[in-house]
Amino acid sequence: MAKSISLLWGAGSPPCWRVMIALEEKKLQGYKHKLLSFERSEHKSQEVLEINPRGQLPALKHGDNIVNESCAACLYLENQFKPQGTKLIPDTAAEQALMYQRIEEGLILTEKLNSVIYYEWFVPEEERHDSAVKRNREALATELKLWEGYLQKVAAGSYLAGGFTLADVIVFPNVAYAFRFGLSVEHYPKLAKYYSLLKDRPSIKTSWPPHWLPSSQGYDILRDL
Amino acid sequence: MAKSISLLWGAGSPPCWRVMIALEEKKLQGYKHKLLSFERSEHKSQEVLEINPRGQLPALKHGDNIVNESCAACLYLENQFKPQGTKLIPDTAAEQALMYQRIEEGLILTEKLNSVIYYEWFVPEEERHDSAVKRNREALATELKLWEGYLQKVAAGSYLAGGFTLADVIVFPNVAYAFRFGLSVEHYPKLAKYYSLLKDRPSIKTSWPPHWLPSSQGYDILRDL
Repeated sequence: MAKSISLLWGAGSPPCWRVMIALEEKKLQGYKHKLLSFERSEHKSQEVLEINPRGQLPALKHGDNIVNESCAACLYLENQFKPQGTKLIPDTAAEQALMYQRIEEGLILTEKLNSVIYYEWFVPEEERHDSAVKRNREALATELKLWEGYLQKVAAGSYLAGGFTLADVIVFPNVAYAFRFGLSVEHYPKLAKYYSLLKDRPSIKTSWPPHWLPSSQGYDILRDL
Repeated sequence: MAKSISLLWGAGSPPCWRVMIALEEKKLQGYKHKLLSFERSEHKSQEVLEINPRGQLPALKHGDNIVNESCAACLYLENQFKPQGTKLIPDTAAEQALMYQRIEEGLILTEKLNSVIYYEWFVPEEERHDSAVKRNREALATELKLWEGYLQKVAAGSYLAGGFTLADVIVFPNVAYAFRFGLSVEHYPKLAKYYSLLKDRPSIKTSWPPHWLPSSQGYDILRDL
């Protein structure tokens, strides 16, 4: 089955990483994949555009079916390969509610992280304002504190929605990204604990962004948040 | 069952409208609901904050379960009330792939519509730039043309992913919103046809934003797009 799956991906991209974790959890190892370079704009290549007209990664095919948006791809994979590997959607209504809620909130977290980390990438020089940078950073801090609160409420050492679910598949790469960009373990102890709980999980370790490995040290843009 | 559901909502908000369409389709009429005013900032009231710490609408409770993000709420409702009302998740892998993909892309469409329609609301006066307005409008036009293309590819008079699915529940309010804000029927004929196909569907007609009814005329901010 894994042979009918192909993934175009970029290293260090949380959306790509989500899909790779889902593929590992569903025991779909052996899928075809190709690492492309954002720096060389390979995500805008014809090869990608034929699968994903947005020119973004991931670009995922399963047979003739295409699912490029990361949460969509994870939901699709779980639903297509339900009996295989980890069960990623829980049974109870309470856990499902929490899982779906956290999945979509994960997209908000991604956006707020990007608005700080990639401000200079998204905003042309003549449109940049210190006031906007400050506001984006405050919004990200508020967002991260919300997640600290969520983790405060769940049982100690727990995942986001009971057992390990699609919510963790989708949100963990954001959390790893935040720490990669310097988020303080002291300021966000629950997120740090969650990071520690998950970082050595086989599906996550195997799919860890390759260029993050040599230098465990990332950047410090989020250091003072 | 409907009695155990309560919804706090705001009129004309696509995220609220999505959840209301899903509730209608799943035959959950009779749920408790309360219309709040964005103008009077009632979405920031204690009543909302107790359910949705983001101070946003919708705020949905089903028993003790809370699901506030709109796609999450629609997915939750379909999964909790599967045998009831319209079946909103199709059976085939091909249709599921398309449905999940379009659902998440619906969130991108929402964001691009908001970045144009609410530019002055989101961006403080001293940070506004004509170049940003122009870029946001171009990005929205590109986005809308992508959806024209999607609708070009599906069978004539069709929904987004085969039969009527969660993709339509989630994307239709965006499309109605675009036309409400003046999108040209001539420039986007496929979107206009899709709008016509769906606007009189009972679940949609019943939940139509009440203040849109008296004046069928909306605004013209998207007229020249």
